[in-house]
Amino acid sequence: MLPEAIEAMTAQLREVGNPSSLHAAGRRARRVVEESRETIACALGARPSEVVFTAGGTEADNLAIKGLFWARRRPRILISAVEHHAALDPAHWLGDHHGARVELLDVDERGRVHPETLREAIARDPDDVALVSVMWANNEVGTVQPVRVLAAIAHEYGIPFHTDAVQAVGQLPVSFAESGVDAMTVSGHKVGGPVGVGALLLARGVDPVPVLHGGGQERDIRSGTLDAPAIAGFAAAVETAVARQPATAGRLSALRDDLIERVRLAVPDVVLNGDPVNRLPGNAHFSFPGCEGDALLMLLDAKGVECSTGSACSAGVAQPSHVLLAMGQDGARARGSLRFSLGHTSVEEDVDRVAEVIGHVVERARRAGLS
Amino acid sequence: MLPEAIEAMTAQLREVGNPSSLHAAGRRARRVVEESRETIACALGARPSEVVFTAGGTEADNLAIKGLFWARRRPRILISAVEHHAALDPAHWLGDHHGARVELLDVDERGRVHPETLREAIARDPDDVALVSVMWANNEVGTVQPVRVLAAIAHEYGIPFHTDAVQAVGQLPVSFAESGVDAMTVSGHKVGGPVGVGALLLARGVDPVPVLHGGGQERDIRSGTLDAPAIAGFAAAVETAVARQPATAGRLSALRDDLIERVRLAVPDVVLNGDPVNRLPGNAHFSFPGCEGDALLMLLDAKGVECSTGSACSAGVAQPSHVLLAMGQDGARARGSLRFSLGHTSVEEDVDRVAEVIGHVVERARRAGLS
Repeated sequence: MLPEAIEAMTAQLREVGNPSSLHAAGRRARRVVEESRETIACALGARPSEVVFTAGGTEADNLAIKGLFWARRRPRILISAVEHHAALDPAHWLGDHHGARVELLDVDERGRVHPETLREAIARDPDDVALVSVMWANNEVGTVQPVRVLAAIAHEYGIPFHTDAVQAVGQLPVSFAESGVDAMTVSGHKVGGPVGVGALLLARGVDPVPVLHGGGQERDIRSGTLDAPAIAGFAAAVETAVARQPATAGRLSALRDDLIERVRLAVPDVVLNGDPVNRLPGNAHFSFPGCEGDALLMLLDAKGVECSTGSACSAGVAQPSHVLLAMGQDGARARGSLRFSLGHTSVEEDVDRVAEVIGHVVERARRAGLS
Repeated sequence: MLPEAIEAMTAQLREVGNPSSLHAAGRRARRVVEESRETIACALGARPSEVVFTAGGTEADNLAIKGLFWARRRPRILISAVEHHAALDPAHWLGDHHGARVELLDVDERGRVHPETLREAIARDPDDVALVSVMWANNEVGTVQPVRVLAAIAHEYGIPFHTDAVQAVGQLPVSFAESGVDAMTVSGHKVGGPVGVGALLLARGVDPVPVLHGGGQERDIRSGTLDAPAIAGFAAAVETAVARQPATAGRLSALRDDLIERVRLAVPDVVLNGDPVNRLPGNAHFSFPGCEGDALLMLLDAKGVECSTGSACSAGVAQPSHVLLAMGQDGARARGSLRFSLGHTSVEEDVDRVAEVIGHVVERARRAGLS
């Protein structure tokens, strides 16, 4: 967490007052929530009334996809094949149990959805489409999608467009208004805020059916006691991360490019996955031929280098990443892949450390694979 | 929040590591989550594997009610008429849009569900019942339900029983195992822990369909990045509140009885709502004939006394409480009602303050009502 977020959050932990209560303590907590809403809206190019707080990115994705499907009462869900499980799994569940027809939008070998792919999918029967969902940037390989162009195509047909921008905020310039999307998922802990809080930004007139029913706290779209401390920490993190985004992007891209170059020097046959140009500044994702990603991860961890295979949510699962498979990779290459993420605490010494150990670690993993 | 909970939570805010990641930081965060799970299970008479973390009570209620309805594929939901909106609203939504038949279980004038009421409702067609949901104790009038007896009746027919125990933990002795219920909702902030975290306790073999799909972090029943800091704070709060429960109950009951007596002295025609015996130690709920609850609330707030009409979640809503209406009160009496809640920070001076101002405040509210 960013120090600014920890400070904003801990200042609220000792306060009492449910933001929905009418007494003085409740009204004070409500002010914290509404000021946080304004801060987040301002940082992300949205109106305060467009911010619906949730318990995180997963809930926001579930709300967008299930909620728009139920609200629109049309069968087709067009969703990219490389979405996070928090978006894909709700869609597949609707397909298995609630009559949805889930159509996966293909990506190219860099992980991009081509505008023509979306247009063709819609055109097969525009009236049958409940929603389109394509993430702003991929959480595994870092590929940035042409969200604005895709949203414009959906709008030609009057179809709402959702994007999971969890990875993008703080790394890329993100404006809800300029992007033209109707619904956008944001998460606290990915921008240096607390876990357990997030938001779904919803344009006017876009009213998903709730996923959590109850007191109706958030415009009757989301229920649950408002978490004033976490929301205050979330707002501080978004504000700080967005203000620093240009500097962060410059610094992390340079570190990341250095990392890529030095990994290539140490392991000449390594392959960089994702889009070489349109990618998240803090993301480097490699395939190491002849290695098992899990073995690499454990060997690197023992050397103090912490990285991931696939997404953390699916860690420990033996299946190769659906993202890499959708990009046309075979199972062996997909299983031999690793993601290195750089963030606000990353420094040149971290890259040095990876460069120092990666050659030896890959060699060991290859020997283990042969035995 | 309890100091113990603040301490446990803030200690984690500076740590990094997704509990689902395989590297060292991830494993450290995972240990925090699993130790917290054990602490909560131990305090509530459950096994660690029976604890499914959620973002709070509302999500846990939604998961129990929607999830068991979808898993059981039977139409009838039997639910008490005095449930919290977080339980009632999911049931009604299933009724409006997913083919459920919601049957409200009547309560008596004290707000209790009679065992015979449940038995008769089930017996009309036992095979058609998806689930029964009756809260442990009511959040407005404080009435404690005969949960163990009710759960046993549901079990005679093989029907799963859910209880929302959000109000009960820390105020009453609560054992998941001894109660015999299949699913139990617990919330962080009601026991002195953080907002934005809770749990659904689920007995073995009780597998609701998820409400939030994604990474499958919690036994594939609940998805979303695990919130290690909030979970640590939640566990510390549950452990502390449960350990102190007998002392708290004794102290709060005495304060509460004193409050009731002194309010009666000041306002002779006041009516105490709820069960005079089987009630939460920290709850006093009154009807003040001839008054509007909102006017009383504002006048008391100006004197530094913070109380509620209905539940905080519905605050600002002009409708009379569904709980009081279900108990047979008319709209006018229901609207003239106020809840005073006592908790771990309440002291005798708080009761003195209420006693000092309540007579005058009620008189002013009555005059306002007449004009």
